Amino acid sequence: MTPIAAASLLENLRWRYATKRFDPSKKIPEATWAALEEAMVLAPSSFGMQPWKFVVVQTAELREKLRQAAWGQPQVTEASHLVVFCRKTQVTLADVDRLIDRVSAVRSVPRPALDGYRGMIAGFVQNPPPGFDPQAWTARQVYIALGFFLSAAAQMGVDACPMEGFDAPSFDQILGLAGSGYAATVMATAGYRAAIDDLAGARKVRFEASEVILRK
Amino acid sequence: MTPIAAASLLENLRWRYATKRFDPSKKIPEATWAALEEAMVLAPSSFGMQPWKFVVVQTAELREKLRQAAWGQPQVTEASHLVVFCRKTQVTLADVDRLIDRVSAVRSVPRPALDGYRGMIAGFVQNPPPGFDPQAWTARQVYIALGFFLSAAAQMGVDACPMEGFDAPSFDQILGLAGSGYAATVMATAGYRAAIDDLAGARKVRFEASEVILRK
Repeated sequence: MTPIAAASLLENLRWRYATKRFDPSKKIPEATWAALEEAMVLAPSSFGMQPWKFVVVQTAELREKLRQAAWGQPQVTEASHLVVFCRKTQVTLADVDRLIDRVSAVRSVPRPALDGYRGMIAGFVQNPPPGFDPQAWTARQVYIALGFFLSAAAQMGVDACPMEGFDAPSFDQILGLAGSGYAATVMATAGYRAAIDDLAGARKVRFEASEVILRK
Repeated sequence: MTPIAAASLLENLRWRYATKRFDPSKKIPEATWAALEEAMVLAPSSFGMQPWKFVVVQTAELREKLRQAAWGQPQVTEASHLVVFCRKTQVTLADVDRLIDRVSAVRSVPRPALDGYRGMIAGFVQNPPPGFDPQAWTARQVYIALGFFLSAAAQMGVDACPMEGFDAPSFDQILGLAGSGYAATVMATAGYRAAIDDLAGARKVRFEASEVILRK
């Protein structure tokens, strides 16, 4: 691997901001977008379950519909790219077996050698801790992928905006997700900031590190 | 900013894995750890609310107690550093005002000029969408910070392990969080992989991109 210097990493994270206005004429190059897709795919998740799908929406007609279901926010149609992060709505033994099959194939490990690993995940899925909410759990995993996407975008000089402000049931309907076992959870738009975005020059607002980080 | 090449970014993300065994003798240099802390602080959150605290636990005694509350997993004591990501358990108007005060101070904007922004967030906090669960919401935000932390670690060549497998109420008690308004949600250990970690050489398991990414 090729580590990057802490100073560059931080410079890039400070450069990013939740871009409200994108320049519609500037498109993310194909290779850069492909890397952003791979960054999502590479995101870690609990047990490696990957309880998600990432819906990349590029057709203008769908973008316009999504914008209407997102209080008309201009990013939805103006950004170069848009991805809707979807959680799995249920987690079952079939999902565990799908994962174990994949581990077996990718690592060339005989299925029986993975019985212990399978049993551990199956035990969790069948007897989750008290109060466990499967959809809240898969939604949290999706946010790791969102973090990976936003981090990767910043490191490659791509602007992005994470967005929770949309009507999720409408999104599911527009994207044909109803009944698919996946549900829209959060989205991100990506592209390049427009000169008209006043927030581009605004100072980043964070609480003091001393308030946010406790040492024990 | 100093963008990094897509190839380097991906090489680093492919290099990372959920490290189970760390080399206890290898410590993360101070400047590198400081950058990881700043990466967490810089993570975005809904409305910029930052409904979190990051508890960095370095005392051996606390680490040992946490390990007992985490099914004895060796990372908890063997890793160079450990951070517990905590969500805010409630979100109130006082939190909104704390944020608006901070925006006003950082951007030198008079408080009244932020009335519209305040009203938007206050409206959400006071009249959230149907079925809205404040703790599930703040927990999701925390996972963005987890994603930022894990991404930053990978880009700087630091090994890390995200961990949900612990008894959260015990963690709250051990860390003195009970009654603080914050609750342990997920943790990460960080340091350098040990030669004994068999998983270091294992192929990364991800579903095919064609299964995970839908195009519309």
